[in-house]
Amino acid sequence: MPPLIALRNATVCTMAAGSEFEPLAHAAIVIEGEDIFWVGAERELPHLEIAQEVDCRGRLVTPGLIDCHTHLVYDGNRAHEFEMRLAGATYEEIARAGGGILSSVAATETEYTLQQDVANDLSCAICETQGDAARERVSTPNRRAEEKRFRDLIAQGVTTVEVKSGYGTRAETETFLLARAAEMANVLPLDVYRTYLAAHVMPPDAGMSRAEWVQHLVDDDVDRVYADTGFDAIDMFCEGIAFQPDELEPLLQKATELGVDIRIHADQLSDLNGAKLAADWHAASADHLEYTNETGAAAMAAAGTVAVLLPGAFYFIRETVKPPVDVFRKHGVQMAVATDHNPGTSPLNSLLLAANMAATLFGLTVEECLRGITINAAKALRRDGCVGSIEPGKRADLAIWDVLAPAELVYNIGGNPLWQRIYRGQFD
Amino acid sequence: MPPLIALRNATVCTMAAGSEFEPLAHAAIVIEGEDIFWVGAERELPHLEIAQEVDCRGRLVTPGLIDCHTHLVYDGNRAHEFEMRLAGATYEEIARAGGGILSSVAATETEYTLQQDVANDLSCAICETQGDAARERVSTPNRRAEEKRFRDLIAQGVTTVEVKSGYGTRAETETFLLARAAEMANVLPLDVYRTYLAAHVMPPDAGMSRAEWVQHLVDDDVDRVYADTGFDAIDMFCEGIAFQPDELEPLLQKATELGVDIRIHADQLSDLNGAKLAADWHAASADHLEYTNETGAAAMAAAGTVAVLLPGAFYFIRETVKPPVDVFRKHGVQMAVATDHNPGTSPLNSLLLAANMAATLFGLTVEECLRGITINAAKALRRDGCVGSIEPGKRADLAIWDVLAPAELVYNIGGNPLWQRIYRGQFD
Repeated sequence: MPPLIALRNATVCTMAAGSEFEPLAHAAIVIEGEDIFWVGAERELPHLEIAQEVDCRGRLVTPGLIDCHTHLVYDGNRAHEFEMRLAGATYEEIARAGGGILSSVAATETEYTLQQDVANDLSCAICETQGDAARERVSTPNRRAEEKRFRDLIAQGVTTVEVKSGYGTRAETETFLLARAAEMANVLPLDVYRTYLAAHVMPPDAGMSRAEWVQHLVDDDVDRVYADTGFDAIDMFCEGIAFQPDELEPLLQKATELGVDIRIHADQLSDLNGAKLAADWHAASADHLEYTNETGAAAMAAAGTVAVLLPGAFYFIRETVKPPVDVFRKHGVQMAVATDHNPGTSPLNSLLLAANMAATLFGLTVEECLRGITINAAKALRRDGCVGSIEPGKRADLAIWDVLAPAELVYNIGGNPLWQRIYRGQFD
Repeated sequence: MPPLIALRNATVCTMAAGSEFEPLAHAAIVIEGEDIFWVGAERELPHLEIAQEVDCRGRLVTPGLIDCHTHLVYDGNRAHEFEMRLAGATYEEIARAGGGILSSVAATETEYTLQQDVANDLSCAICETQGDAARERVSTPNRRAEEKRFRDLIAQGVTTVEVKSGYGTRAETETFLLARAAEMANVLPLDVYRTYLAAHVMPPDAGMSRAEWVQHLVDDDVDRVYADTGFDAIDMFCEGIAFQPDELEPLLQKATELGVDIRIHADQLSDLNGAKLAADWHAASADHLEYTNETGAAAMAAAGTVAVLLPGAFYFIRETVKPPVDVFRKHGVQMAVATDHNPGTSPLNSLLLAANMAATLFGLTVEECLRGITINAAKALRRDGCVGSIEPGKRADLAIWDVLAPAELVYNIGGNPLWQRIYRGQFD
């Protein structure tokens, strides 16, 4: 039995499903190895042999935060495109200057080629005498920027992050991106849930229809990528400018056969009944949902599909139609909140700021915001059995904040109130 | 002559007035003591005896950031009010529950009384044997939270900050707040410009008209507060819900006689010709300006009054009318950008996020945003003779960023790209 660690004199928001949101004052949490052993009022703390005590001095303790929708793994960035747009450039001018999502795809292809070259070099005899120089080449500016994005989330209390591929258009490059996501979980103290964003962008020279492209993914790519990476979910972009519901059916069927979670980018820019599609296929989540109709919302509630709200993209692209939060409440749809970090429409790297935006822009309450980045985010990833709330038996992923009340976490904009983060029972 | 420090292999945005915005690649900066000695292309670096070299590896160097409009010094916070509003409470219900600006005034009074008690205790003989306990009492949760707000700004590259009083309604409490602002400049590595926000809020039991209140400030308070603190500027809140232009004239006259800078909260919620008023009195800045008319803009340009844009408040209160940025451009009004950090309408604690909001919400270009938080912010504080740009003879207040292009600083949302900050020639 590993030595026990006790957090004493804490204010605890357990976020346990069905529990009161009101935090428990004068509370304690006992950690045993990687897991939570006990949580409750100080005065009820059982007699235990505690190896280490941490006095929280009344600070707020929540579950470690969960960012359940990101595209953190990509190469290059689109700051120049942002700059051009602010200077008055049209989308056409930006596209002609090499901007848009295809620029991220191209940057990923370039990085892939570079890393393949490095890998080949590393396996050659000469490199054994030049190991350091070779390693320096592996750590390109793109990879350092990528690691920094993960570190920024960790610095604000995130312990689990979902990461999507999607900037590759070949099995090799998608595998490359998913492997990078997995690598982050090895080198940094956080858990990574990996999503194969299969139907995202078609190469302009694909020479086939969208339906044929989806069929090609199902026939040629999904099994290969799954064999190489063991991803947790398949995602797809259901939108007027991307894939229609009927075009996605073979991929949904394939995901169901594989037994992985389904996630759908749905109803972000128009109402294609994407929410209903997600519910019909028992998706773990439907994401964005600005244009979702009530039938879709009711179907999501019935199917247990979580609504993942992404106010960062809403803010960045100056969308004006908000997701139908009142309709979600009416039907009991569970809502999560995520950063949607991506280079094109949401270069947002703070989950607390996403929560503030969900409150300020979408009108979520403080409780909805905080459940949305903890327990409901865990549900969106179907990991609520092990993370997302402070309950005995769950993983000891915790965040201790230099605030006295939960509302402060959502109210503050742009500061960092984290005092201490704990991942699998280990303090950072 | 102090030893010279050289930043080598840098990408430098000097932000010098009238200079090209395009950064200088392969550049160097030489620091002598607290000041900048030389800046230019590496290949033109003169032969100097350099004591210490820092290889920036191509990183971007800008002037240290300047936040030219904040209310960082206050007690309590208003997170609970935010929570109530999201849960559907009306302004009346919030006021009845003790919310609103008067709650910040009351918290300041309480803290003042507490600190007076502590000061009295500290001077008594008993306390000499209980020094540590007494000091612990001086460091209240309010004061720790306040210091954290300053630290959050510093962590993101800020080297100069403007701080307003305004939550006191007596000379004693306003002096108390201004002294706290000054103290931050003693305990933390940043420069603080102190503004006496004289005409801000009237106590509900003042028993006089607004005009009489302003006259009372002029007759009874201004000289006392100035004698005790030596503030840099007087500010006032010109608004339908606060003071009218004609009511403010005695205070403007008094500020002119004292020779301190004038700053005006103008045209935030309605057009009261606040911008014109600021220009007529040669104010250093007029701030907010959502409802400013073209006559006011033209007058500001002629008077050299800087327009300080505050997108954090616009975002937080869900304002829909934007400041007339095109009109400011047409007339050549200089624009700065600031956080307006305050507990009621802008709990924003990141100047880079303010810059992103200025771009995303107001349509400022990347160059306008970055000049707005460096050289134009220095102009708003009339300190552009010594800070705000990288030029020989100016203070060596610098920020080195883990980015390659200036646009990345504005494009990123919520992350922290700072690599290293330098204040008065000293690395953090």
